[in-house]
Amino acid sequence: MTYRHDAGDKSGKEMHDLVAALYPIHRSMTGNGVRQTLDILKNHIPVQTHEVPSGTVAFDWQVPLEWNVADAYVKDESGARVVDFTQSNLHLVSYSQPVDAVMSWSELKEHLHTLPKHPDWIPYRTSHFKESWGLCLSHRRFLELDALGDRSYHVRIDATMTDGSLTYGEFSLPGTSRDEVLVSCHTCHPSLANDNLSGIAVAVFLAKYLARAQRRLTYRFIFIPATIGAITWLCRNERRAENIKHGLVLSLLGDAGSTTYKKSRQGDAKIDRVVEHVLQHSQQEYEIMDFEPTGYDERQFCSPGFNLPVGCFMRTRNGYYPEYHTSADNLDLVQPESLADSLQKAVAIMETLEGDLTYRNQKPKCEARLDGLGLYSAYGDAQRPEELQQAALWLLNMSDGTMSLLDIAERSGLPFTLLKKVTDTLAGAGLLAEVPSQLRTPAGEKSADVEKKLT
Amino acid sequence: MTYRHDAGDKSGKEMHDLVAALYPIHRSMTGNGVRQTLDILKNHIPVQTHEVPSGTVAFDWQVPLEWNVADAYVKDESGARVVDFTQSNLHLVSYSQPVDAVMSWSELKEHLHTLPKHPDWIPYRTSHFKESWGLCLSHRRFLELDALGDRSYHVRIDATMTDGSLTYGEFSLPGTSRDEVLVSCHTCHPSLANDNLSGIAVAVFLAKYLARAQRRLTYRFIFIPATIGAITWLCRNERRAENIKHGLVLSLLGDAGSTTYKKSRQGDAKIDRVVEHVLQHSQQEYEIMDFEPTGYDERQFCSPGFNLPVGCFMRTRNGYYPEYHTSADNLDLVQPESLADSLQKAVAIMETLEGDLTYRNQKPKCEARLDGLGLYSAYGDAQRPEELQQAALWLLNMSDGTMSLLDIAERSGLPFTLLKKVTDTLAGAGLLAEVPSQLRTPAGEKSADVEKKLT
Amino acid sequence: MTYRHDAGDKSGKEMHDLVAALYPIHRSMTGNGVRQTLDILKNHIPVQTHEVPSGTVAFDWQVPLEWNVADAYVKDESGARVVDFTQSNLHLVSYSQPVDAVMSWSELKEHLHTLPKHPDWIPYRTSHFKESWGLCLSHRRFLELDALGDRSYHVRIDATMTDGSLTYGEFSLPGTSRDEVLVSCHTCHPSLANDNLSGIAVAVFLAKYLARAQRRLTYRFIFIPATIGAITWLCRNERRAENIKHGLVLSLLGDAGSTTYKKSRQGDAKIDRVVEHVLQHSQQEYEIMDFEPTGYDERQFCSPGFNLPVGCFMRTRNGYYPEYHTSADNLDLVQPESLADSLQKAVAIMETLEGDLTYRNQKPKCEARLDGLGLYSAYGDAQRPEELQQAALWLLNMSDGTMSLLDIAERSGLPFTLLKKVTDTLAGAGLLAEVPSQLRTPAGEKSADVEKKLT
Repeated sequence: MTYRHDAGDKSGKEMHDLVAALYPIHRSMTGNGVRQTLDILKNHIPVQTHEVPSGTVAFDWQVPLEWNVADAYVKDESGARVVDFTQSNLHLVSYSQPVDAVMSWSELKEHLHTLPKHPDWIPYRTSHFKESWGLCLSHRRFLELDALGDRSYHVRIDATMTDGSLTYGEFSLPGTSRDEVLVSCHTCHPSLANDNLSGIAVAVFLAKYLARAQRRLTYRFIFIPATIGAITWLCRNERRAENIKHGLVLSLLGDAGSTTYKKSRQGDAKIDRVVEHVLQHSQQEYEIMDFEPTGYDERQFCSPGFNLPVGCFMRTRNGYYPEYHTSADNLDLVQPESLADSLQKAVAIMETLEGDLTYRNQKPKCEARLDGLGLYSAYGDAQRPEELQQAALWLLNMSDGTMSLLDIAERSGLPFTLLKKVTDTLAGAGLLAEVPSQLRTPAGEKSADVEKKLT
Repeated sequence: MTYRHDAGDKSGKEMHDLVAALYPIHRSMTGNGVRQTLDILKNHIPVQTHEVPSGTVAFDWQVPLEWNVADAYVKDESGARVVDFTQSNLHLVSYSQPVDAVMSWSELKEHLHTLPKHPDWIPYRTSHFKESWGLCLSHRRFLELDALGDRSYHVRIDATMTDGSLTYGEFSLPGTSRDEVLVSCHTCHPSLANDNLSGIAVAVFLAKYLARAQRRLTYRFIFIPATIGAITWLCRNERRAENIKHGLVLSLLGDAGSTTYKKSRQGDAKIDRVVEHVLQHSQQEYEIMDFEPTGYDERQFCSPGFNLPVGCFMRTRNGYYPEYHTSADNLDLVQPESLADSLQKAVAIMETLEGDLTYRNQKPKCEARLDGLGLYSAYGDAQRPEELQQAALWLLNMSDGTMSLLDIAERSGLPFTLLKKVTDTLAGAGLLAEVPSQLRTPAGEKSADVEKKLT
Repeated sequence: MTYRHDAGDKSGKEMHDLVAALYPIHRSMTGNGVRQTLDILKNHIPVQTHEVPSGTVAFDWQVPLEWNVADAYVKDESGARVVDFTQSNLHLVSYSQPVDAVMSWSELKEHLHTLPKHPDWIPYRTSHFKESWGLCLSHRRFLELDALGDRSYHVRIDATMTDGSLTYGEFSLPGTSRDEVLVSCHTCHPSLANDNLSGIAVAVFLAKYLARAQRRLTYRFIFIPATIGAITWLCRNERRAENIKHGLVLSLLGDAGSTTYKKSRQGDAKIDRVVEHVLQHSQQEYEIMDFEPTGYDERQFCSPGFNLPVGCFMRTRNGYYPEYHTSADNLDLVQPESLADSLQKAVAIMETLEGDLTYRNQKPKCEARLDGLGLYSAYGDAQRPEELQQAALWLLNMSDGTMSLLDIAERSGLPFTLLKKVTDTLAGAGLLAEVPSQLRTPAGEKSADVEKKLT
């Protein structure tokens, strides 16, 4: 893209630093790890922390008890920790019940999870809706222990499951319009870097970028635990949801894979078209998936009672890279270049949403004279006079009050950024005038009819 | 297909037996052969026989004189039958005038039809709308006779062409709705097994299957001579035709070829979509053809004054297998397995039409909790928990009052049978409620508007 | 195409003769060359010459001063013409200011244009909107002169730039309907044969063809200088433009390349569909381009304030053949066979527009009897009985008052010419009746509703 928006040259490094700062924290659906996470984000943007008490009803669900962990381990007969939560918080199955018991290897084995195909990796497991407990470890360590025979072990899970609250963060940038863009990312995973510290980091830096200037649209960022967090947020913001005109779930944005976009349930919402346009002009590989009712929190935003235009923006999609939900989803998997590229595309998406206005050619009969407008040498880009002139001709020809800049970008094949730039020149010369959205001609009507409405 | 409808394990054999019982009968557009045919069908289903007098006007046509044949032959000078109707009724051109004359070989030759490319086969020929006569024989026999030189022959066609009637059969299964499904097959061909005793047999066994339970839709089966029979039936049932919401012409359903479906003139009628869905999920080769105004009686049902949603369901299409309209279209060409497969698909089509209702998610905001519904181990199919859960998520996400189960099947790519099964579970749990057809939200409207109508 | 319209066997030769007669004339945006050109056309059709005074305002533009050239040359010190307008009018940059000066080679060089890649060709250059002058010559001649060193030359451009007028021609064939077909071609190029004497010649012979009979549609031919001519014409005919229902810009119609059609801005106008249909059935290669706001005068006709259904009909498109805008675009490049083929296709397009009526089957319920209509042996084409019957069946099946003959041609895949021929037979037999356009059933409505309107 020629007319890149400046998301900051160092943003890749800075986002990776943020991921690294968040990585050690033990997060879960609830608990202090989420609060610590939000506190770190406050170094960048003034995220507001919300607490929703355990037991609060949210549609078909209830906010669960709060879970906090002080320590967890398995000690052998010598007192040595053979599984140790302080070494990796993935060793503990999320939402495990407290345990303090001595048991035989054969009994303990029933509670252990490993990945035989990746013997050095610890899996990530949860037990959110079943009262149970479990431990995860590398298959290599499991085999070592298994070779020792049926010895006795002391299992300790020093966790509390108490009335408390579900914690989420929210940050909004009010625009001149009530129309909102929702950006959502999940904050409930322990030490997994790509899933989803990468999404959190991109969201934070996207917010910082957008905050630099007054915007037309209102932008709302939410940092929520997956599923129950989205359900709780929607239940508390049912009215506000009506203002959400576009939205993205950000997740898995730091790996080296190419970008994947999963469309909203609507399938042809403006967000869907904008993301496709940005990816088409990225000169990189990408994949567009149709909506399906599995995945991340787009499932909730796109439930039929809301049907919000919210898609999911990822690099390699969930479940399609081997390190997914394992200890190998670490700080090495997430690359500054990938984070920077994801941010750059997210910025382009938001700028396209922001700038997608509709204009009307003020001299619609035959071509207007363009000499003197400097469309050939403007912008210090003497190498590309034809592109600028092409853009001007397309804009003037198509701007009949029915087609927005995105419509024109799609029809002409020209990048939105170029059209936007030339639009500013043409509008400055009085050749294009913005059509207020309430006066836009529905496609198919003649612009003459709209002119009547205007007078 | 996992959730097969049970059309009976022995149905292939039983249908072939029925074809074999009907095979020897000499049928034509009119006459006793059709009556005998219908009488045999009455051993299976209570078909009602209708007689329409010769000369009855039906739109642009008239019911023809009734044609019956006692005997037909060519005898040589020794009195030996060299062409003999009692050996094969294909020897006589259908609707031939009576003849009793001695003539030379050179004169006789003008009335003979053969298939030089298939020298052992007797062709099937008709002369419905021209007063003439003719005989068909194998090209081998023709060459033998031709080698004998210009001998004298006695030609006898002992046929009557008299005021009588056109005979057709009808059988209906009244449903709880007035909406009808029309199933039509032609009964006018003599000893041709695939064309169309196969269609008759599948129709009869489909009727037997459907009769096992009370149905929502009304099913009407008609057994009619091609063209004039369809025209006559439509003329006598012009009002009733308004109730026909779906229909199939059944023909050529016993050969070993893959299934062919020719769409209705409408092209996107529900029957067209249902057949395509069933074939897509059949895990077999198939072909879908666009409508064209040639072929079987869909030509009449799809004439512009009716434009009924009636397609044509076949295996290898008419004219595309070499045995078509020859003595090689015999009991060997028709296979029990093919008949059974055709019936199985016809049953799946009818069950899909029958079950294609529209539901509304009763908890449309965010996902409903599914635990306790046994969607993971229900139906004794522990191997496929994910499929059941997928189906449930698709059903709940899409059931906004605008999409029927078929719509959801098409969008999700899941088989209708699976969705139907899971719908029953979800409806039983109060999560889905059927939307009466008069309250269905037109696509695009919000379900909220429909809720207002409901209250 | 079987049912060719007779555009005249000798038309290719006659059009080439016309191109040859026009070729020597020095044409420009204004001036006597255009008047001489129109005078020659008057030998074929009664073109009316219009003169629009310099300075006349046309939308965002003004009619320029009139430019006429008496002579132009560069003489060397010996007085020999080394560049000579009388040898080729391409030597002079169009709209050059008058010059009469002696200057050095190094000074002169600044005003010279050559084509190094094609050293024997003289380029065609214009300077319409900048006060300047220039000369064009072959690169070979340029190098010869350059080798002579910095000699002195006498440059003379004996041209006048005065208040005068812009000249264009117009010819109309009034039809029984006010609906108009616009045919436009540009007349402003000097000795360039394909661009656009070929377009002028095809337009003239198309007009002659159409004039042979009274037509339903009104046909208007305009012979105009590019851009300013189209703008001026539209400004003077703003009201009339509302009657233009179809239109073609004719250009580049004589080279050996295959046909290219550039769609109108509307993209799905009837003219777009008709041209595509004619090309599909031409049994030749062709290319269909989407509209883009560059090219010929379709830019003006398709400006958003007019948005007329006008496409551009060419062979090899502008800029895509090497001789484009050079002295090699001469009488050899233009071939009688290509001109004849372009005319034949243009005739087929106009006949399709002319004949694209809508009919209603008068016996819409079931098939009508066709025996006795001679559809099998009519037209002396006994080889193709099936094609005629196919056409009849398609016409009767589809003619429900919503589909025009073009619609039926597109759906059936049959050529319009065949359908038109069989329509005449069926209409003659009372089976099809034309539906007046104001009574056409909108697609989707039942024909019964229209019948109500008719009674």
